Amino acid sequence: MKRVNRQVRLVSRPVGLPRESDFELVERPLKSPSNDECLIRGEYLSVDPYMRGRLRDRKSYAPPVQIGDVMVGGVAGRVVTSQHPDFSEGEAVVGNLGWQEYAVANGSQLTKIPTNTRLSTAVGILGMPGITAYFGLLDICSPQPGETVVVSGAAGAVGSVVGQIAKIKGCRSIGIAGTDQKVQHVVEDLGFDAAFNYNTTDSYSRSIRKLCPDGVDCYFDNVGGAITDSIIPLLNTGGRVSVCGQISQYNLEQTEMGPRFLWHLITKQAKIQGFLVFAYADRYQEALSNMTKWIAEGKLHYRETVSRGIENAPRAFIEMLKGGNIGKQIVKLTE
Amino acid sequence: MKRVNRQVRLVSRPVGLPRESDFELVERPLKSPSNDECLIRGEYLSVDPYMRGRLRDRKSYAPPVQIGDVMVGGVAGRVVTSQHPDFSEGEAVVGNLGWQEYAVANGSQLTKIPTNTRLSTAVGILGMPGITAYFGLLDICSPQPGETVVVSGAAGAVGSVVGQIAKIKGCRSIGIAGTDQKVQHVVEDLGFDAAFNYNTTDSYSRSIRKLCPDGVDCYFDNVGGAITDSIIPLLNTGGRVSVCGQISQYNLEQTEMGPRFLWHLITKQAKIQGFLVFAYADRYQEALSNMTKWIAEGKLHYRETVSRGIENAPRAFIEMLKGGNIGKQIVKLTE
Repeated sequence: MKRVNRQVRLVSRPVGLPRESDFELVERPLKSPSNDECLIRGEYLSVDPYMRGRLRDRKSYAPPVQIGDVMVGGVAGRVVTSQHPDFSEGEAVVGNLGWQEYAVANGSQLTKIPTNTRLSTAVGILGMPGITAYFGLLDICSPQPGETVVVSGAAGAVGSVVGQIAKIKGCRSIGIAGTDQKVQHVVEDLGFDAAFNYNTTDSYSRSIRKLCPDGVDCYFDNVGGAITDSIIPLLNTGGRVSVCGQISQYNLEQTEMGPRFLWHLITKQAKIQGFLVFAYADRYQEALSNMTKWIAEGKLHYRETVSRGIENAPRAFIEMLKGGNIGKQIVKLTE
Repeated sequence: MKRVNRQVRLVSRPVGLPRESDFELVERPLKSPSNDECLIRGEYLSVDPYMRGRLRDRKSYAPPVQIGDVMVGGVAGRVVTSQHPDFSEGEAVVGNLGWQEYAVANGSQLTKIPTNTRLSTAVGILGMPGITAYFGLLDICSPQPGETVVVSGAAGAVGSVVGQIAKIKGCRSIGIAGTDQKVQHVVEDLGFDAAFNYNTTDSYSRSIRKLCPDGVDCYFDNVGGAITDSIIPLLNTGGRVSVCGQISQYNLEQTEMGPRFLWHLITKQAKIQGFLVFAYADRYQEALSNMTKWIAEGKLHYRETVSRGIENAPRAFIEMLKGGNIGKQIVKLTE
């Protein structure tokens, strides 16, 4: 076993879109686990949009990553050595272990990955993104059979799951994505009813009206900005908007201005609700149990975009923020 | 009895703030009621912010007032002659009878006003505005004891009730209003914990932070615009915003731009919900019963700003849109 741990640390706060030079790769000696701790070798590192928010030095639901810190991130891996009674060598686990090849973590910070499950899915469809999709759609929007559900960021780790769960629940699923390839993927591979490429349409509003002739009952928002502006006026009475992400805004240094739309909420008796998946922690098992069943039944599909090597994590993160991924963006840490 | 009915009709669609010349006063012969109809003599006419929206020629929850139509509006009055078995001469009723001194209406369009109730309250605290405050606060915000509730338009017909109900429910009530007199009224007469004059503060945000040291749990929004912008970032985790009105926007001819704030909803796990009081039609009695009790117990107070004469209804409406009223703006139709 290598005695060296490679880590990615933050060296400067990004201005706008992060650059690779905002991060550095360092080598550190491996630590040994103390009582109740395990040493984990990471196999799959998750890079996610929320991480951009954690790079900002402002108060939020979680403290920001400090300069010099190892970047935060979920990792699926295997126990190398265990000083915790519940974990044994070779067991597959997932936890917030950060951008590094090895991590020492207390057993209470680790979740076991069931043996019949692909490790990578523990940071994807059966991890935070999938669970986010599940509760963000079902709990916030309560989609009803026959309703129209619109998803922005439809080809991403969360959006791709939202549109499929909407179909499972008997809704029409309409996706919005940034390339023709993504549009084709969500319709042909994932079974969305329709989708359009926001980068090539000449009117978001016209595209949505065309694909949603009965208006929009539920909108699952991963992106915010002008796409969201165009959907709010098309909400039906009693419409529900689940605000999961605002990726169009994360790299802006100044608050962007947009049209005021709250009066639409009055006339449509509509609601817009934001959420964090952690609020559902005591119900994660419900989500995982249902999604595992749907995957087994062939009703729920996923794709992964895989980068290789911890040294490429910053680039994978930046590319994901630019929309380079289809499905879940992960970084494979092992050969 | 006079054989003439004076009515206010719309003669041109207002651009920006309505002008008196957008309306005309006409005299028409009195109609007689047919089967199941009553002739009503109006005593109190309601002028309300929502009427500005009804002057716009666009699709909404209700059709717009057409040029030449009698203006829409709630009226409390008494039955002059009845051809309906459930109503008799002299009975007090309320209904959407329009801006006119007399109206012929089907009995199904009329609601009886209990005999122990002041007629004017049927278009105010025990009418649409009061019921709007009741459900808009209690159902949308579910305020909990000890929470901080902020109300914009605090001295108006709706806001003044919201802040008092919040107090009854054990919350801190913070009001925002446009004159020092209104601020004094809501604190000294209505028992809000604090209030400030948005026209004389140099920072909405600083004023709110100062009066809400524990953040904002519930925000009841009657005004929208920059005041609302300043409150959204101060929402606590799980904050709730009830969007009742957006009076700052009603006279704008172009959609105003404002800072995008949806990301706050994510990090605060907050919701913004719009509503129309009609959604609660089958529960109006619950609101009236509770509010009548609170008034009798001295826990709920109201004030009226009274104009006189149907010919002054347009001016009363315009002054109300400019914030000239304290409490419920009504027009007394009879001497």
